[in-house]
Amino acid sequence: MTASASASASRDLTVTEVRLTPVLVADPPLLNTQGVHQPYTPRLIVEVVTAGGITGLGETYGDTKYLELARPLADRLLGHRVDDLNRLFAEADQVAVDAARVSGQVDVGGLRGVQTADKLRLSVLSALEVACLDALGKSLGLPVHALLGGKVRDAVEYSAYLFYRWAEHPEGVTAEKDDWGAAVDPAGVVEQARRFTERYGFTSFKLKGGVFPPEEEIAAVRALAAAFPGHPLRLDPNGAWSVETSLKVAKELGDVLEYLEDPTLGTPAMAEVAAGTEVPLATNMCVTTFAEIKEAFTRDAVQVVLSDHHYWGGLRNTRHLAAICRTFGVGVSMHSNTHLGISLAAMTHVASTVPNLHHACDSHYPWQSEDVLTERLAFEGGTVRVPDAPGLGVELDRDRLAFLHRRWLDDDGALRDRDDAAAMRIADPSWTQPAVPRW
Amino acid sequence: MTASASASASRDLTVTEVRLTPVLVADPPLLNTQGVHQPYTPRLIVEVVTAGGITGLGETYGDTKYLELARPLADRLLGHRVDDLNRLFAEADQVAVDAARVSGQVDVGGLRGVQTADKLRLSVLSALEVACLDALGKSLGLPVHALLGGKVRDAVEYSAYLFYRWAEHPEGVTAEKDDWGAAVDPAGVVEQARRFTERYGFTSFKLKGGVFPPEEEIAAVRALAAAFPGHPLRLDPNGAWSVETSLKVAKELGDVLEYLEDPTLGTPAMAEVAAGTEVPLATNMCVTTFAEIKEAFTRDAVQVVLSDHHYWGGLRNTRHLAAICRTFGVGVSMHSNTHLGISLAAMTHVASTVPNLHHACDSHYPWQSEDVLTERLAFEGGTVRVPDAPGLGVELDRDRLAFLHRRWLDDDGALRDRDDAAAMRIADPSWTQPAVPRW
Repeated sequence: MTASASASASRDLTVTEVRLTPVLVADPPLLNTQGVHQPYTPRLIVEVVTAGGITGLGETYGDTKYLELARPLADRLLGHRVDDLNRLFAEADQVAVDAARVSGQVDVGGLRGVQTADKLRLSVLSALEVACLDALGKSLGLPVHALLGGKVRDAVEYSAYLFYRWAEHPEGVTAEKDDWGAAVDPAGVVEQARRFTERYGFTSFKLKGGVFPPEEEIAAVRALAAAFPGHPLRLDPNGAWSVETSLKVAKELGDVLEYLEDPTLGTPAMAEVAAGTEVPLATNMCVTTFAEIKEAFTRDAVQVVLSDHHYWGGLRNTRHLAAICRTFGVGVSMHSNTHLGISLAAMTHVASTVPNLHHACDSHYPWQSEDVLTERLAFEGGTVRVPDAPGLGVELDRDRLAFLHRRWLDDDGALRDRDDAAAMRIADPSWTQPAVPRW
Repeated sequence: MTASASASASRDLTVTEVRLTPVLVADPPLLNTQGVHQPYTPRLIVEVVTAGGITGLGETYGDTKYLELARPLADRLLGHRVDDLNRLFAEADQVAVDAARVSGQVDVGGLRGVQTADKLRLSVLSALEVACLDALGKSLGLPVHALLGGKVRDAVEYSAYLFYRWAEHPEGVTAEKDDWGAAVDPAGVVEQARRFTERYGFTSFKLKGGVFPPEEEIAAVRALAAAFPGHPLRLDPNGAWSVETSLKVAKELGDVLEYLEDPTLGTPAMAEVAAGTEVPLATNMCVTTFAEIKEAFTRDAVQVVLSDHHYWGGLRNTRHLAAICRTFGVGVSMHSNTHLGISLAAMTHVASTVPNLHHACDSHYPWQSEDVLTERLAFEGGTVRVPDAPGLGVELDRDRLAFLHRRWLDDDGALRDRDDAAAMRIADPSWTQPAVPRW
């Protein structure tokens, strides 16, 4: 084979195989209004292989309902090219979604917003899209950001994602340990923030709230403001508050908050809060699909949309979302759930291409001690450098992938679907999913 | 040099030269509410050359005010890569626009909608973007549609763009001739439509109105409906009517119109018409920039946005616009001004990638007897096949380009800025720009 024929062969972009590998990854006992993170959380790792021998990587939520859709959607990609994404998305609604999966209004106690068939499909398509873009970039010798029109910044800023947490998971529960210690009061939160700044250089801070009565969380944010004067601060109770409580917190913290995130549930309530405060409202619960935008934007219910590229349907849709936000004078930044390095790389690539990204992105990544990469992505000065290597610029560690997949195989099913309330019941058998608003 | 080193060299995507060539192209005496097309109309042909020796083509409006911006914007591209577009767009506002150029509210008698500094820049950037995408596609061996996520259809449908017209330009005016003959009444319009169907297979028809009193244009649309029963019909008076007249026409033609295009000027008036009729309103005058979308969409003033990729800022922005329209339940299709084959190829590529394109696109191309391509694009069955060759899939004819540029050089300035009213005054010295609404 000549060099030229070989180069041409490696450029065959046809998808010949899609590997889907569910894993369970260690997660610390982070608290939220629904309960506590389980010791292991499911993620799905996607590998798209081209006829040219290139493998692209993607990652998304790994709960059973996503896995059910992953195989039929992946099969639709077989025989098509990794640059043929619009067709895949246009035809995705031909893949049926079990009605029982979307009969409820919300997902994981509402933490991921509304649950619809389209959103479930997009959550899986996003991983296929990212894997295709990774494979395309590797095949062409271009970084993923170049496939999105090029980066407008060389590094993407992230915020320190502070959590109330226990030092360890409940006694008797199999779990990995970490050295972060507990944080259940203002002093603990400030101490956690200090470690975040020392280790990663973060300069803005988000506290996951909705865990303790609002007065305690107000005190925690006040303590952060005192310890880090002038730094951007955010509080996110995941919709745990009434309109009245939301307005009260906004009033008390208005001088130090960059924004208040999902203080209350639903567009009408968010619009009521927004009308009563100058503090911008951010959301990853009220607006999580394109279908929710019109009402929320015309009612001025939200001032910042936190995109999660997983459920918005990937990097190209995230860019569409950013364009919509720009058009309507709404800010945009990024939400995060528990995720690994493939998704952090994907978030960093797309964030680097969005001109109107004016808030540091969220990421759980510092809390994840495990990954499937040969080399973890690093935070330096609170930022992740945008990779310029072909594709996403990350490499899969197959031994680690096999190890984490084995954990998933060995699980009896208890951890394959994230359930923060169930995890909380291990520590507190009387725990039930809290009625909303809690306060 | 080895084969591999040669391949690598041809892949150097750095822009080393941008050639800007204004041309004057023949235009028939097509009538609209402002006057008549001049015998030659200005266009700007853009060539972006990479260090790898690849040349990409773009095309946009060629009036003086665009030419003034083209050189400083092109200079910003030098030394950067053709896949580095977001940065170019983000920094474009550093290129100053002469305030006198945007002091008026509208352009070419309002035919192109509002005039702003941003829109002027985007009108030039669009040609640079298309040329970069053409060069990138050629460098990578991929068609432009693949760079936009891939086509969702293999051919793009266009409508027959019917015009009231004279057989020839006024006596004594230097002009090219054509064999279409005059069309100044219902019979002439139907005859023109028949020739369009016979030559190109178009199945939907748009009549440029605002030329004669509404009763005459209603009669012409009725004649079309009788001659082509069941075919989609559109009427576009370029905002020449009052709200009252618009509602009267909508009522009289409601049973045969696919949509009514820009019956009246401005979002408030369009909203009033929209509220009073079931006939969808389309626009390429009321909404021509992202800044105009929020008011128009929240007031339900328009039901179909006709994108002109030139002034929306290129193919990627057109995809953003389509996503916004999808999100707000507004239809999308494509507007056309006088253009050549480079732009028709660009329109066809981007249109092929937009899933929610549910109306045939407009194109003046059948009226253009001249082009700068070695081979004209063809309409077959009312569609243009989406090119799958690398880049746009078109090739520049340098002799033709030089010939049309020579015509621009030889012009004394009278034709370098399109002025339909000035052209009309040659036939009718008493003609002044009509007050709006005319009827």
